[in-house]
Amino acid sequence: MLYAVIPAGGSGTRLWPLSRACHPKFLHPLTPTGESLLQATIARLDPLAGPARTLVVTGAAHAVGVARELPQLPTGNIIVEPSPRDSCAAIGLAAALIHQQDPDAVMGSFAADHVIGDNARFAQVVTDAVAGAQAGYLMTIGITPTRPETGYGYLHLGAAVAGGPVRQVAEFKEKPEYEVAVGYVDSGAYLWNAGMFVWKVSVFLDELRRQCPELAAGLATIAAAWDTPQRESVLAEVWPTLPKISVDYAVMEGAAAAGRVAAVPGDFGWNDIGDFHTLGEVLPVDDHGNTVLTSGRVLLDDCTDSVVVGRTDRLVAVLGVQDLVIVDTADALLVAPRARAQEVKRLVDTLKGRGDGDLV
Amino acid sequence: MLYAVIPAGGSGTRLWPLSRACHPKFLHPLTPTGESLLQATIARLDPLAGPARTLVVTGAAHAVGVARELPQLPTGNIIVEPSPRDSCAAIGLAAALIHQQDPDAVMGSFAADHVIGDNARFAQVVTDAVAGAQAGYLMTIGITPTRPETGYGYLHLGAAVAGGPVRQVAEFKEKPEYEVAVGYVDSGAYLWNAGMFVWKVSVFLDELRRQCPELAAGLATIAAAWDTPQRESVLAEVWPTLPKISVDYAVMEGAAAAGRVAAVPGDFGWNDIGDFHTLGEVLPVDDHGNTVLTSGRVLLDDCTDSVVVGRTDRLVAVLGVQDLVIVDTADALLVAPRARAQEVKRLVDTLKGRGDGDLV
Repeated sequence: MLYAVIPAGGSGTRLWPLSRACHPKFLHPLTPTGESLLQATIARLDPLAGPARTLVVTGAAHAVGVARELPQLPTGNIIVEPSPRDSCAAIGLAAALIHQQDPDAVMGSFAADHVIGDNARFAQVVTDAVAGAQAGYLMTIGITPTRPETGYGYLHLGAAVAGGPVRQVAEFKEKPEYEVAVGYVDSGAYLWNAGMFVWKVSVFLDELRRQCPELAAGLATIAAAWDTPQRESVLAEVWPTLPKISVDYAVMEGAAAAGRVAAVPGDFGWNDIGDFHTLGEVLPVDDHGNTVLTSGRVLLDDCTDSVVVGRTDRLVAVLGVQDLVIVDTADALLVAPRARAQEVKRLVDTLKGRGDGDLV
Repeated sequence: MLYAVIPAGGSGTRLWPLSRACHPKFLHPLTPTGESLLQATIARLDPLAGPARTLVVTGAAHAVGVARELPQLPTGNIIVEPSPRDSCAAIGLAAALIHQQDPDAVMGSFAADHVIGDNARFAQVVTDAVAGAQAGYLMTIGITPTRPETGYGYLHLGAAVAGGPVRQVAEFKEKPEYEVAVGYVDSGAYLWNAGMFVWKVSVFLDELRRQCPELAAGLATIAAAWDTPQRESVLAEVWPTLPKISVDYAVMEGAAAAGRVAAVPGDFGWNDIGDFHTLGEVLPVDDHGNTVLTSGRVLLDDCTDSVVVGRTDRLVAVLGVQDLVIVDTADALLVAPRARAQEVKRLVDTLKGRGDGDLV
């Protein structure tokens, strides 16, 4: 039986102006069914974990939104961070709380804002990962690369271990140069690191204590106070002192060097909706390849392969463009070519820098 | 002494969604100085005619807007048509009213929504045209073509007459095919017909009576009642019966065939702001060739030669595009390449056809 942990943070700046600091990517209905990404994530994990064993870790700013989107989760399963301390604190707190209840538990950590194509295949891959976790490995679910993507980290696979499709992870590789990425993909020995992990909480916490004792100790203190009247005061005192570090850096890279990380390939159709270009790849298209996601009026005249997102009741009229992104929101409009959708992040930085932070 | 007549009608559908049926092109501040096109037209004519001899003929829907934009005009000089009956009725009514006051008057008719580059040169050309009008010709001010434009009619020039730069007009030519237009421009014997006319009102009214007696009679009836208590009832009775016809078809083409039309070349820098592409050619550009006309916030990142018009307080953020038109208004957004700016008219037709006429 699996515990599912969903760290739901990050604002998704490459999806600005749709995604905002106060209304992050995972709360948006960017799926073909109209569910939010978070709701779709929870639904996908339901057959594997179920509401009672599903924990969402989110920020104070999003707690209300998450609570309303997920009425099926018990109140105690929505864990609210006082402030963002990166992924290791979020995932580690969930691991510590689960360990208190069930020392032998296996947990999986899954991003709140990814889209999966084949949920049945996803469930099978997670089940394979659970087997590797039961054998004592910190498991990662890597994504079989479909292109030489330079925007992701890679997992370098080693020997087969623990039976089935499980392969040892020889090394975590940072985002590569393009030529290097081409070599990775051609070799067949690399997977994308998509930040999906499965492990026994006891194994993870041992490794956290070994590599990052200060963080492990802080989380243990908080977990011990969790079900007592001191939760709030301990959280307020200890949480801000926790090291701000990702779980990759804090635990996974060092554990891989020690031979304790393994992976299963995820060939279930995956998309992290990193930007509006990839959003267009995930959602249905019209006869001309256009993705239109709006509740308002739209007029497309001789447009192809474009992504039009409307969040106002204004008419969006587009004539004679191709491969263009148009995002129309109440207080900001974005126009950019799909090929440059990743650079939208820079616009957000520019806006912050010039005093237009109210729009971010 | 010249009388200036400005027929101010037409909604400028190729400038949708900025220009609307209820807020036409000539009332928009599309000039480098921030004046509306109508205000700039009146200011340009001021040294030639002055407010007392300047008449604006406009529709009921725009009468209030015109009155407020032109406080210097006497109340009686803003003539309000009960309904649109095309340009010959509008110009003919003004001619008939002027003739009643001053049978020897010379009047010029000028569009309300053109941009002129060199006002001093414009004044000289009009003065040359007045000389031709005094000699008895129906004068047109043609524009020296700068490209083989297929969207305009052309004037085929004949012999020099009446001294100075005045040339007889042998024929009015409809909008030509591209190859034909190239020949026109290369020959040097053609000017664009820009709908600017100068004539003695008596000569014009004679020609109108000869070619279009019904329209001439109706206008005479209205003019006779104009300064009487019957103006309103006569206007209501007669105006709707007037033939709906342009002054080109009703008078100028037939007059040219009879040898009564002449032209002076207008080499004063002219632009009819027919669409957003040409708007970008008229207004100042930034270092990257972008025309930005907005009172709100704008963020252009690596954009070139684009036209951005904002009429809301929303941020307009544009990344990595070139030669694009973006027009942001309260209830409609337009995105289109500059090269296809003329096709915006089709969008307006589509909107009307599908029941979105509230946005037109």
